[in-house]
Amino acid sequence: MLNVHTRLQGWQDRIETVLDSVLPAAATHPSRLHEAMRYSVLDGGKRMRPLLVYAAGEALGIAQVHLDIPAAAVELIHVYSLVHDDLPAMDDDDLRRGKPTCHKAFDEATAILVGDGLQALAFQLLAAHPKQHASPAQRLRMIELLAQAAGSRGMVGGQAIDLAAVGKVLGEIELENMHIHKTGALIRASVLLAAYSLEVVDALAVQRLDHFAKCLGLAFQVQDDILDVESDTQTLGKTRGADAAAGKPTYPSIIGMAAAKAKLHDLHTEALHALEPFGDGAHALREIADFTVKRLR
Amino acid sequence: MLNVHTRLQGWQDRIETVLDSVLPAAATHPSRLHEAMRYSVLDGGKRMRPLLVYAAGEALGIAQVHLDIPAAAVELIHVYSLVHDDLPAMDDDDLRRGKPTCHKAFDEATAILVGDGLQALAFQLLAAHPKQHASPAQRLRMIELLAQAAGSRGMVGGQAIDLAAVGKVLGEIELENMHIHKTGALIRASVLLAAYSLEVVDALAVQRLDHFAKCLGLAFQVQDDILDVESDTQTLGKTRGADAAAGKPTYPSIIGMAAAKAKLHDLHTEALHALEPFGDGAHALREIADFTVKRLR
Repeated sequence: MLNVHTRLQGWQDRIETVLDSVLPAAATHPSRLHEAMRYSVLDGGKRMRPLLVYAAGEALGIAQVHLDIPAAAVELIHVYSLVHDDLPAMDDDDLRRGKPTCHKAFDEATAILVGDGLQALAFQLLAAHPKQHASPAQRLRMIELLAQAAGSRGMVGGQAIDLAAVGKVLGEIELENMHIHKTGALIRASVLLAAYSLEVVDALAVQRLDHFAKCLGLAFQVQDDILDVESDTQTLGKTRGADAAAGKPTYPSIIGMAAAKAKLHDLHTEALHALEPFGDGAHALREIADFTVKRLR
Repeated sequence: MLNVHTRLQGWQDRIETVLDSVLPAAATHPSRLHEAMRYSVLDGGKRMRPLLVYAAGEALGIAQVHLDIPAAAVELIHVYSLVHDDLPAMDDDDLRRGKPTCHKAFDEATAILVGDGLQALAFQLLAAHPKQHASPAQRLRMIELLAQAAGSRGMVGGQAIDLAAVGKVLGEIELENMHIHKTGALIRASVLLAAYSLEVVDALAVQRLDHFAKCLGLAFQVQDDILDVESDTQTLGKTRGADAAAGKPTYPSIIGMAAAKAKLHDLHTEALHALEPFGDGAHALREIADFTVKRLR
């Protein structure tokens, strides 16, 4: 078996190919919309959610070919949320990963429609893409899971909580609640989509993967908040201290830097602990967890 | 059997109750978002798409209880598209049916999230609502149909074509192409959702219902364009000649008023012709067609 870095890299290449193949061609009418959809999706991001689908699938012994469509669907939902989050009425960001955001490269109306179209495409793929190999009952479970994770009681709800929180004093529990919705729901959905690719799911294994994902999602946010204070602007790719300056509540601002670092350590440990029963099969999941807490963004 | 007016009225009341029951309660966290979702959906619109689901279901002999969730799902998609269309970056409308639009009553960010949340909810309902009685295979067909009709090659694509058309000179074929995407796709999906509530579908019946819906969708647009010129501002509920003034291509402006009225008449005749094999069962569909061409909005 290839070493874990090579496998993760291979999955990043693989999902790029899958996404390219499921998106309508840029020449498809109306072409400006489809160009903008491709511009927004095919930007070579880290693809954390698809990596989690493939890595959780590996832990459960599922062939990659069964994971392509779930991995693509969750990434389309993630990308649509970024396109909408970047809009002037939301976070008003001009750049994402060094490229102009969709509404800057195209226009606001197109960016709204790109997000709307990507969300519809995600559910269309899970329901009926020719490479979607799961049974009807499994597909429905995936659609329900993803719709719930993406919707007003999941990711979209988290975004609403985030917007309402700017300039307010939050407690740690409220901050955690925001992250559990805003990013946690889709990260958990990623590992569960892999599990739902199995006809018969081991409930205990799913529970452990879900707990791993919950810890991972929070660790990701805590590390994000730490980096906002400690990393320099160049490494960060955005202005250091931008979150604090924007009045956004962060872990260091609420519980202090030392407690934030201790929390990150605890979440990392708990995430790895949840993976113990999977043995060597969970190497890729462990690598993702390690990367998450050690990354410089 | 109750007369057709009473049945249509009954379906309008019924879908209001269904929509009320499938939407998260206003107190559900985050409550401002859920309040805004309910504000946008529960406004007592004409509910043309749900009426088409129930009326097509009646023509096919399907019990109402099997049509509730498909009818709610297509209406949620329609409402989300209105909320996004009304945004300043799109049509920039302050009023809808005499009420402030969602971004006016709440704010732009909330309106974006309301639309996003409603779309997710539509697919969640079709996949897994307890009152969704269709088999797994039927549900998947419905989800595929609705996702395709709502997506970038359907309704969202039509909106992109519409935005690109402002101020341009379109031919009749291009205008028709825009409407087929923008409103036609979801109107056709409404009658097909009813058909897909049957385990075994008569292909010829579906074809005829689909043709009916295609004619109806276009007739609706032609009549809209005629009313924009001929109706007075008060009856219309918006400024007379607003479409023409906004540089939007219309049937009267492209083919002339006399040809537009002849086209409306032909589409109405063709729609009714498609319903002939259904006999008395299609009374409600005929009533919807008659209302569409005779309405004053």
